[in-house]
Amino acid sequence: MNSKGFVYIIGAGPGDPELITVKGINCLKKCDVVFYDATVENSLTKQAGSAAELIKVSETITNNPLLLDELNKHIIKFAKEGKTVGVLQEGDPFIFGLGAEIARAVVSENINFAVVPGITSAIAAAAYAGIPLTFRGYSSTLAFATGHTDLNKKYTDVDWEKVAAGVSTLVFFMGLDNLDMIVKKLIENGRDPRTPLAIVSCGTTAEQETLSSTLGEIAELIEKENIKVKVPAIIVIGDVVGLRNELNWFK
Amino acid sequence: MNSKGFVYIIGAGPGDPELITVKGINCLKKCDVVFYDATVENSLTKQAGSAAELIKVSETITNNPLLLDELNKHIIKFAKEGKTVGVLQEGDPFIFGLGAEIARAVVSENINFAVVPGITSAIAAAAYAGIPLTFRGYSSTLAFATGHTDLNKKYTDVDWEKVAAGVSTLVFFMGLDNLDMIVKKLIENGRDPRTPLAIVSCGTTAEQETLSSTLGEIAELIEKENIKVKVPAIIVIGDVVGLRNELNWFK
Repeated sequence: MNSKGFVYIIGAGPGDPELITVKGINCLKKCDVVFYDATVENSLTKQAGSAAELIKVSETITNNPLLLDELNKHIIKFAKEGKTVGVLQEGDPFIFGLGAEIARAVVSENINFAVVPGITSAIAAAAYAGIPLTFRGYSSTLAFATGHTDLNKKYTDVDWEKVAAGVSTLVFFMGLDNLDMIVKKLIENGRDPRTPLAIVSCGTTAEQETLSSTLGEIAELIEKENIKVKVPAIIVIGDVVGLRNELNWFK
Repeated sequence: MNSKGFVYIIGAGPGDPELITVKGINCLKKCDVVFYDATVENSLTKQAGSAAELIKVSETITNNPLLLDELNKHIIKFAKEGKTVGVLQEGDPFIFGLGAEIARAVVSENINFAVVPGITSAIAAAAYAGIPLTFRGYSSTLAFATGHTDLNKKYTDVDWEKVAAGVSTLVFFMGLDNLDMIVKKLIENGRDPRTPLAIVSCGTTAEQETLSSTLGEIAELIEKENIKVKVPAIIVIGDVVGLRNELNWFK
């Protein structure tokens, strides 16, 4: 490796600032510069060393490859100057995040890096809504998908025919805009319309809200009651959603 | 609620003691009693309040429902005495853990509880092995399954026909004993035998080891080379495994 710089790609966790890891905090404190998601609680960036330069990254970066290239250039520039650079991202950097893309850019310049995992937003949001994503007897398989997966595709490339009825619990990240399509595809491909469904918004924060319904009824419920679902939101589909009736502990 | 006791169900994370959350540490410090997995680093239990009583839970509890009933009885007894009880489990308590079963037992006795999510072992183990479980262009769906799902079943109840080729990345928890069966079922149901596969053992710890191969060749490799794979181990199957060639940062 040519450079003395170093890059930490750090997961900030799902929203509750206390849900970052101890390692995440310790690494932030070592950084000279921290790039952070606009979606990450401001309070988290305060954990960085007091001398660290804090640079906010636009929330729209996932939808704009040019911005990602730009971000990578900045990260690499600082690292080549010998600086320790932190990149603080919502959730886990390797689960529907930009972590791997940043890591590849960094490695291609022979810069050392480390990944500090974060609590995946969907798992924690569901847990705070009283929904265990797996449960013995109800759910032995769990799948994550994105509502939109590629910058140039309007829709996800999920293999609906297989996923619809092939896994017990199904979780969509960023799927709210495509809710009607998701519901339609799942039912068309054999998922029971009576399957419980929950939408958890702003998971693990004081603004958390959960909307419970079924696969067959959710779209009508939202339209009829004119419900404005806040983002970020995850969609959970599966019998485990029913456990919320017992396990809803976070108020 | 009848009792002043309280139960925290806390995820300890994947192995590296620094990968517990700040909230996990803060909650441990409030506990009068902490039940902890035998699999959890001893160092983690030191984070509990110095006056807390620490009680080790047998590693075999997931295979023995009587032990789980026994554990729940102890937790409930302490909580009813007005104590703050912590239950510290490897990984995330709601992902193939006992968290939901403990929560149900606690709630049925009108005892308040909270869940503190932990880093899911499989996500972190893969990240430390340089494998992002999702990657734009390679993997837009990710599924988790267990190698054994029910106490009374020898084999998993995964819907092989659908899962085999229906999701981009497939991760098995506790699947090592059933590796031959997993490989056979996936190939029979249409997964390309050339699909990259990695087994990550003791993820995120100093003992971490990764064995890379393909779906079609892994079983022969293990037999031929007489490789003893350490546990706990996860099995990752999918094109994302190939990114390890570039992103293997943890040595």
